[in-house]
Amino acid sequence: MDDAEAVIHVETRGGAYDVIVGAGLIDRPKWFPEDTIGADVFVVTNETVGPLYADRLTAALGPRRITTLVLPDGEEHKNLDSFSRIIDAMVEARMHRDATVIGLGGGVIGDMAGFAAACYQRGVAVVQVPTSLLAQVDAAVGGKTGVNHPGGKNLIGAFHQPRAVIADVTVLDTLPEREYRAGLAEVVKYGAGLDAGFFSWIEANAQALTQRDAKALQFAVRRCCEAKAEVVQQDERETGRRALLNLGHTFGHAIEAATGYGSWLHGEAVGAGMVLAGRLSVRLGLLPSADAARLESLLSDFGLPVAPPPISADILLDLMRMDKKVLSGRLRLILMKELGDSFVVADCPEEEVRTVLHAATAG
Amino acid sequence: MDDAEAVIHVETRGGAYDVIVGAGLIDRPKWFPEDTIGADVFVVTNETVGPLYADRLTAALGPRRITTLVLPDGEEHKNLDSFSRIIDAMVEARMHRDATVIGLGGGVIGDMAGFAAACYQRGVAVVQVPTSLLAQVDAAVGGKTGVNHPGGKNLIGAFHQPRAVIADVTVLDTLPEREYRAGLAEVVKYGAGLDAGFFSWIEANAQALTQRDAKALQFAVRRCCEAKAEVVQQDERETGRRALLNLGHTFGHAIEAATGYGSWLHGEAVGAGMVLAGRLSVRLGLLPSADAARLESLLSDFGLPVAPPPISADILLDLMRMDKKVLSGRLRLILMKELGDSFVVADCPEEEVRTVLHAATAG
Repeated sequence: MDDAEAVIHVETRGGAYDVIVGAGLIDRPKWFPEDTIGADVFVVTNETVGPLYADRLTAALGPRRITTLVLPDGEEHKNLDSFSRIIDAMVEARMHRDATVIGLGGGVIGDMAGFAAACYQRGVAVVQVPTSLLAQVDAAVGGKTGVNHPGGKNLIGAFHQPRAVIADVTVLDTLPEREYRAGLAEVVKYGAGLDAGFFSWIEANAQALTQRDAKALQFAVRRCCEAKAEVVQQDERETGRRALLNLGHTFGHAIEAATGYGSWLHGEAVGAGMVLAGRLSVRLGLLPSADAARLESLLSDFGLPVAPPPISADILLDLMRMDKKVLSGRLRLILMKELGDSFVVADCPEEEVRTVLHAATAG
Repeated sequence: MDDAEAVIHVETRGGAYDVIVGAGLIDRPKWFPEDTIGADVFVVTNETVGPLYADRLTAALGPRRITTLVLPDGEEHKNLDSFSRIIDAMVEARMHRDATVIGLGGGVIGDMAGFAAACYQRGVAVVQVPTSLLAQVDAAVGGKTGVNHPGGKNLIGAFHQPRAVIADVTVLDTLPEREYRAGLAEVVKYGAGLDAGFFSWIEANAQALTQRDAKALQFAVRRCCEAKAEVVQQDERETGRRALLNLGHTFGHAIEAATGYGSWLHGEAVGAGMVLAGRLSVRLGLLPSADAARLESLLSDFGLPVAPPPISADILLDLMRMDKKVLSGRLRLILMKELGDSFVVADCPEEEVRTVLHAATAG
């Protein structure tokens, strides 16, 4: 592990691109070359990130025609109305087919900028400059874009691979503590779902990560991006292995929907969701309870909630049935055999899920 | 040429599927098999087509869970609001990832149903059952979906190949005369742009086509679908040869935008657009004037307008610059060398375009 930028190459049917992970990337023109980003640039950011980084990004972009749209901050704005605002502003700025959209922000901005780029004139290029830990380790890589609907998270969207992802770990310094910790839940997800060695590394480096140590962060972000790139390359459309990246997500999405998007952060909901997936795995005799305990303990060390909010099991179960990963009404969940080894269960017994939910929400 | 159904197989990167062209298909369950259409079906239609054909389609679909959404009729409803209504209704009907959307209607319904299917849970299957001549020969095949924006036609959309296209020429019997004739403009487009022999066939069979003779229609629709399938297979994303299908469209889109969508029918605008493309081709010394005259004469025989509305050349030119086919502000048009032989001109001299527009709109 060294300080130089890591370049992770991703090849999918929908496009090939590089993910760059490093420190100070946002200020260096070399990471925004002409063959990646054209002369017309449309930056989508929000009122929190924009004031901090839009000018620096613009400076690095140099003499291009740049239009910047600043949206309100928050998951509650990730909807068709904001999507429509982006499209309107792109039309007003006379963006053409060869324009490049840049998503400068967290997962919400990246998802919306990517979805607008996917649909504008049936698809223009998008470059992701993720500024949250969650977005750097998960949202920015892989081409999933979309907005929420009252009926479900990311219910409206598209697969649209970015042309590049520029993950500058130094911008994480300004991230609010709660958001940063929520991002750590997604880091844990890679360990718990895919890689036992990485899970142990996270446990050993929990303090450095909590303190946002740059070296530890760069290693963690790089590791997550490599893992995601590997999975996405094998399975762009989530028919198989990519589903494993959703460990904790069906539970988590139900928590987010039940509490109204924005009340729980996505990473917080995923953290509690992983705990529930762990408990369900133990209950079904799949996972040693010691492994589930290690997972809860690590999430707890990161200051993350390890129980869902006090909402009835029936409501959560109903929302889980509406989740995208549910095929034909069957409850499809990611469960664990051990830390680092997860798998898809296509038809999860609802009574067992209800029991786990009931125990957790009543506690 | 015989009466049996024609099955045209289309293979693109985005999916492989069959286009079935024939008579009476909509009433026969054999064209809606289980491996193409799942158990959950969401039919999108409009208040004109729905009452005529929705029950017959439902009967042919048999014992599936079918929800039908009836939208208002007209190009003016092809917008994000209608898209949003489709998504809302799909959520309400609890459509899952394995649902099949069926677009039962003309090009507007097909484009919107296809776009909703493209975005719903990041993509579900769509089957097109086109009921207008325009949709049968052009809109339903090829995977272009989308909605209009005040800033441009089809400005918001996606490439999403259908799982099947069922083109039943008998449903064209109920098409209003004006719409039917507008559809003939797109038939002429295939001849004028790609196939001199087919152009001559259309001239020779103009009367049979005007009278909606079933045999002539089946041959014409089949021929157009074969031509479109061939082009789409070579070039799904319209970087090259697929662009030739846009003969007359950059002019046509400007006419539609300038008059407000819905005042001119799409086919009417494309017809006038082809005439303008022909005149421009003659003016630039590319096309013999006799060929341009044959084109105008055939369109005129079909009762189609051969001149744009009285709108200033500058306004039309400005709208043409905003068209999707314009790259980096250069005017990219499809011109003709002879009937059946068209090509892309990447940087059309604006003054020549203005002159042709001015002469046509002042006349």
